[in-house]
Amino acid sequence: MRIIRAPERMQQEIAAHRKKGSSVGLVPTMGALHDGHLSLVNKAVKENDIAVVSIFVNPAQFGPREDYLRYPRPFKRDAEFCRKAGVDIIFAPEPESMYSKNYLTYIKVEKISDMLCGKFRPGHFRGVATVVAKLFNLCMPDKAYFGMKDYQQLKIIEQMTRDLNFPVKIVPCPIVRETSGLAMSSRNSYLDAKQKLYGARIREALQQASYMIKCNKSKNTGKTIANIEKTLLGIPGAKIDYVAVRSARTLSPLNEINERAVILAAVWVGKTRLIDNIIIDTNPKRQYRISKKTAN
Amino acid sequence: MRIIRAPERMQQEIAAHRKKGSSVGLVPTMGALHDGHLSLVNKAVKENDIAVVSIFVNPAQFGPREDYLRYPRPFKRDAEFCRKAGVDIIFAPEPESMYSKNYLTYIKVEKISDMLCGKFRPGHFRGVATVVAKLFNLCMPDKAYFGMKDYQQLKIIEQMTRDLNFPVKIVPCPIVRETSGLAMSSRNSYLDAKQKLYGARIREALQQASYMIKCNKSKNTGKTIANIEKTLLGIPGAKIDYVAVRSARTLSPLNEINERAVILAAVWVGKTRLIDNIIIDTNPKRQYRISKKTAN
Repeated sequence: MRIIRAPERMQQEIAAHRKKGSSVGLVPTMGALHDGHLSLVNKAVKENDIAVVSIFVNPAQFGPREDYLRYPRPFKRDAEFCRKAGVDIIFAPEPESMYSKNYLTYIKVEKISDMLCGKFRPGHFRGVATVVAKLFNLCMPDKAYFGMKDYQQLKIIEQMTRDLNFPVKIVPCPIVRETSGLAMSSRNSYLDAKQKLYGARIREALQQASYMIKCNKSKNTGKTIANIEKTLLGIPGAKIDYVAVRSARTLSPLNEINERAVILAAVWVGKTRLIDNIIIDTNPKRQYRISKKTAN
Repeated sequence: MRIIRAPERMQQEIAAHRKKGSSVGLVPTMGALHDGHLSLVNKAVKENDIAVVSIFVNPAQFGPREDYLRYPRPFKRDAEFCRKAGVDIIFAPEPESMYSKNYLTYIKVEKISDMLCGKFRPGHFRGVATVVAKLFNLCMPDKAYFGMKDYQQLKIIEQMTRDLNFPVKIVPCPIVRETSGLAMSSRNSYLDAKQKLYGARIREALQQASYMIKCNKSKNTGKTIANIEKTLLGIPGAKIDYVAVRSARTLSPLNEINERAVILAAVWVGKTRLIDNIIIDTNPKRQYRISKKTAN
């Protein structure tokens, strides 16, 4: 396994692999790798000749009051994690080599970047889209792997890739959870044992809502959201940023759940912001296919 | 020579060429090709295994009151022009295949997109940056050729390419002029014979200013601009959008011309907006090199 720091070297290295006809898979991460990442990495290793994991805490996607500085950076552990998983290249650039002093270019995916998490984290998805485009140009992957926990991010990356004609296949990967149900996240390291149990209740609330809809008790969005919020407000110290029911394809709001939908939630537990989501498939046939391939 | 309409086919075709190790040169155009384009095309044909000319009147870079609909589209003549020049592929997509109904993604190069022409054509350079990124992803060139008449555009594309790490070398090409001195442009076809002579006076005004600076009569920006404006206002029916003296490297304003500079002008002659520029090199050694390689 090679560890590459300089963007130009990364580009040269991959260009050489591509010239030989090797296929390339990229897993873009901010490090602090966990079993959620591992499921992406395993897929990338299995499906490609060369598996690249980028580890880069991207300053452009953090707001001025967010946790850029305290975000965990356990690089040695991450490198060992990748080596064991059979990764070929870790790309771990320095912030200054990715954003020069004279950096000026940003990519914005309109509409779907401003809603949901975008409303609470202005500029966040602009930073995400920009760095992913940079990583695509530097690592030139055939396939890039993204977790479904960050569902809005996944949709934005899919849209950007399609709109800008990047020759990259986006592979969505199902959420991986703790035994408690808590969706795995690098930010879970901010939580103490009690808070982790509180966090798991977000999943419970979403799952409860999903059952209600599937049992045809209610397909009404307003009622669904109210029920979830009621459960979430029972969590000690919780603060809800949003609970929303959206089209799973376009993220546009739904009044009635009569197409493939996603319920998304962002909730503060203490000083940690957690997100989670659940896909609601009203078509039982498709539901089966989805649950086998990309269940969360 | 092949003419390709579908973006996906273009991408597949070039991927196949690249796999064989062929180098690719791209000349992005809006068609209505003239001898200015020809100088770019000749270079692309000479320097690459595969020369691609894209012909696409990009709706995203036109304002609502601009000339998108009446912009000339002499496709047959353009195709013949390319065939004679030894072009391998014309990429001429339909607007609907480049911008789907659900298109949402735009690239903005901050600061240098909002000044000069950007001030008079809001959104123009966002449209330019976006379509060029799309063309880079679809045509995957090693080199892309841009005329220096659109100097601000060139600087924006250079900045975007560097910032987003596109693996593309940008090749600037000198302005080509009519015998009269008028910079060649597809929009010159809007001018009648008299207006063409008026247009040539823009070049005269810039050249006059350049002589004044080089003879050390004045390195003061304010005086230089005032002199040029005086000459331009002598053109019947002319309306000045701007005359500006900027750093040739960064486009930032200069009070004194004591580094490599560019004087830029945008002037309406009747209902046609013309732009032109001249590079001022205060270092005589570099001046020589520049005048041989990229003189305008």
